Amino acid sequence: MSIHEKLASLRIELPAATRPAAAFAPFVRSGDLVFLSGHIARRDGGVPWVGQLGADLSTAEGAAAARAVAVDLLGTLAAAAGDLDRVLRIVKLLVLVNSTPSFTEQHLVANGASELLIELFGEPHARSAFGAAQIPLGSCVEIELIAQLRA
Amino acid sequence: MSIHEKLASLRIELPAATRPAAAFAPFVRSGDLVFLSGHIARRDGGVPWVGQLGADLSTAEGAAAARAVAVDLLGTLAAAAGDLDRVLRIVKLLVLVNSTPSFTEQHLVANGASELLIELFGEPHARSAFGAAQIPLGSCVEIELIAQLRA
Amino acid sequence: MSIHEKLASLRIELPAATRPAAAFAPFVRSGDLVFLSGHIARRDGGVPWVGQLGADLSTAEGAAAARAVAVDLLGTLAAAAGDLDRVLRIVKLLVLVNSTPSFTEQHLVANGASELLIELFGEPHARSAFGAAQIPLGSCVEIELIAQLRA
Repeated sequence: MSIHEKLASLRIELPAATRPAAAFAPFVRSGDLVFLSGHIARRDGGVPWVGQLGADLSTAEGAAAARAVAVDLLGTLAAAAGDLDRVLRIVKLLVLVNSTPSFTEQHLVANGASELLIELFGEPHARSAFGAAQIPLGSCVEIELIAQLRA
Repeated sequence: MSIHEKLASLRIELPAATRPAAAFAPFVRSGDLVFLSGHIARRDGGVPWVGQLGADLSTAEGAAAARAVAVDLLGTLAAAAGDLDRVLRIVKLLVLVNSTPSFTEQHLVANGASELLIELFGEPHARSAFGAAQIPLGSCVEIELIAQLRA
Repeated sequence: MSIHEKLASLRIELPAATRPAAAFAPFVRSGDLVFLSGHIARRDGGVPWVGQLGADLSTAEGAAAARAVAVDLLGTLAAAAGDLDRVLRIVKLLVLVNSTPSFTEQHLVANGASELLIELFGEPHARSAFGAAQIPLGSCVEIELIAQLRA
């Protein structure tokens, strides 16, 4: 199955590249690497998906938000690469989880993004996940991504 | 205008490369990428610019601190590249904002750095900004930077 | 002295590559760069080394935990490179220190990892260190690493 067929089978429609909230670009390409800016979780790509893990949201809700961020990242990645078929691999995710000092399941939240990307690209990526004290606009999850494009 | 003319028009004097506070290098070059260590905000390049956003400092003060970090990063980048003219582009910033759990304007703080770099280099960079629970020496902002040098 | 002789003189036995706690890979190689996932501190490579700096652990204990993470990273790096002799340099560390809002010695904690890596590789790396609100499984330190392999 091509990545487009996989997206269709998951009923995922690629959004347009995310517009940055401030003075920066959604992505920058350097050689065969493309660096995607941190994308914050938004409800259906719209208003920020706010809340803190450990206070306002369950781990499962956080994982759903992380999956939504991954979908938005895919939209930006498609714009960066021209087509998702031209992505060789996802190199690394940096997953920031808006956390109270007592919440310790950032890795399970991050899995919401990782599992979708593994299903689509067929191999795992490197990753770091940790608790941020806050995230712009109060969003519950923010993810930054590095991908490698085909030569 | 060259970048040197732009710096002069902004009355920005490049500082020397920042000396690390501990056991690491201010930058490492790998191929045409240069990775700059996290630089903490300092008042006029000197003592740490301390405080937490959401408690001790306003968003505007945080943005001024972020701009000061960008100036220090430029000093290190000039040392890394030999001359700022040899910088092809700013690839990505990682902007850590020392934040209380209720402060959600990390993106506006980060703009203090981004707007200066865009003015100097003429194009936007990728970026992630989020709230850190603390920053070394109590500094209010820390920024890490990746740049691409001309071949 | 080769890096293997240095490890032996320090009585450090390389662990196996760290197994990820969730849906991601311990490392991904892209060109001559290898990106290692965030490794959390574990006691003797086993159970998470839990606690927060500023509450449960001293700076010296945090530095010991950071050194333990560096040893685990070396195990993963050896697996990524085939042999540590094939590592050209450590490019950058991202050091997350599980911190209360009042702890400001993240750089001293990070030195526990940096000093070991400098001793082994003979030159310093770029680095960012800051306080995270929490870390997966409650671990006290998490470190992500980028290295460059020999061509």
